[in-house]
Amino acid sequence: MSEATARFERRVLVAVDEGEESMYALSWSLRNVIFQNSRDTLILLYVKPPHAVYSPLDSTGRIDDPETPGWLISGYLFSPDISAAIEKYSQEVADCVLEKAKKLCKDLQNVMVETRVESGDPRDVICDMSQKLGADLLIMGSHGYGVVKRAFLGSVSNYCSQNVKCPVLIVKKPKPSAGAGK
Amino acid sequence: MSEATARFERRVLVAVDEGEESMYALSWSLRNVIFQNSRDTLILLYVKPPHAVYSPLDSTGRIDDPETPGWLISGYLFSPDISAAIEKYSQEVADCVLEKAKKLCKDLQNVMVETRVESGDPRDVICDMSQKLGADLLIMGSHGYGVVKRAFLGSVSNYCSQNVKCPVLIVKKPKPSAGAGK
Repeated sequence: MSEATARFERRVLVAVDEGEESMYALSWSLRNVIFQNSRDTLILLYVKPPHAVYSPLDSTGRIDDPETPGWLISGYLFSPDISAAIEKYSQEVADCVLEKAKKLCKDLQNVMVETRVESGDPRDVICDMSQKLGADLLIMGSHGYGVVKRAFLGSVSNYCSQNVKCPVLIVKKPKPSAGAGK
Repeated sequence: MSEATARFERRVLVAVDEGEESMYALSWSLRNVIFQNSRDTLILLYVKPPHAVYSPLDSTGRIDDPETPGWLISGYLFSPDISAAIEKYSQEVADCVLEKAKKLCKDLQNVMVETRVESGDPRDVICDMSQKLGADLLIMGSHGYGVVKRAFLGSVSNYCSQNVKCPVLIVKKPKPSAGAGK
């Protein structure tokens, strides 16, 4: 273990999602900020969409018509079966993303790699988790929503860079014409 | 030189200004991202305020009244003496900031440290210089204007994180109550 990196015992939070941008951010960081022989703890965080469309409400939200068993939430009606299917799909996506992220970290030796799955608005969850997990550094891709959603909500990275207390590293995936990043 | 860091030949641009925030960003980065025995090139960039208040305009902007020799720019009138004094003061501030920043880098061994002074809106200049200098990473404090100016213009770091093509690391100085950062 080199002297330069052995002293690191940082808690580095990396927000990952389905996009290539976040995987690029992780791999760039593994080459540039996190070293295989440091003692950092790397926490891979995936944020699932909010439960609002399928979580059960209290009794006031229940639709008790036996012809339409299910839950009315935020104007959407889903049967328990559909709710369960959405939840299952959401968990599978989370597992898949984190598996892909962990594969990128396979060469890390002393670095502890942890994974977290949380639910909610990525902007709030990432900021909250940075604080709760005592992150010394937050790393994320520059995007965290699709193009349309971002137009309404602003970019996740933009929000986080303004609201997170610790240093934030925002990594953009270079455009193909610009060549691969170092 | 350790194997982990010897391979680094990155061009790292650090935007520095009069604020403590940017000096903290630099020193945090020297502990966490830039290593004394790497072969990185560290470019310390200071952006002076725009020349608008004292640069000569073309003849249409000249006030030729011999009683008021000087330049009318953006509604402000400065005599050549005052313009020169402002320019001198501005350069002294730049020199002072860069000197302070270079002192923080004194322990770097193989890292090449360069300084640049540019003039203009820090948001545009930092973005332009990142591209022109082929920066692999931009590092800056989370603020770049005073409180009042920031309220009107938005934060420099916020603008740069959205517009710079390379990865951007934004380092916030912890509040005194939160204790010193690692």
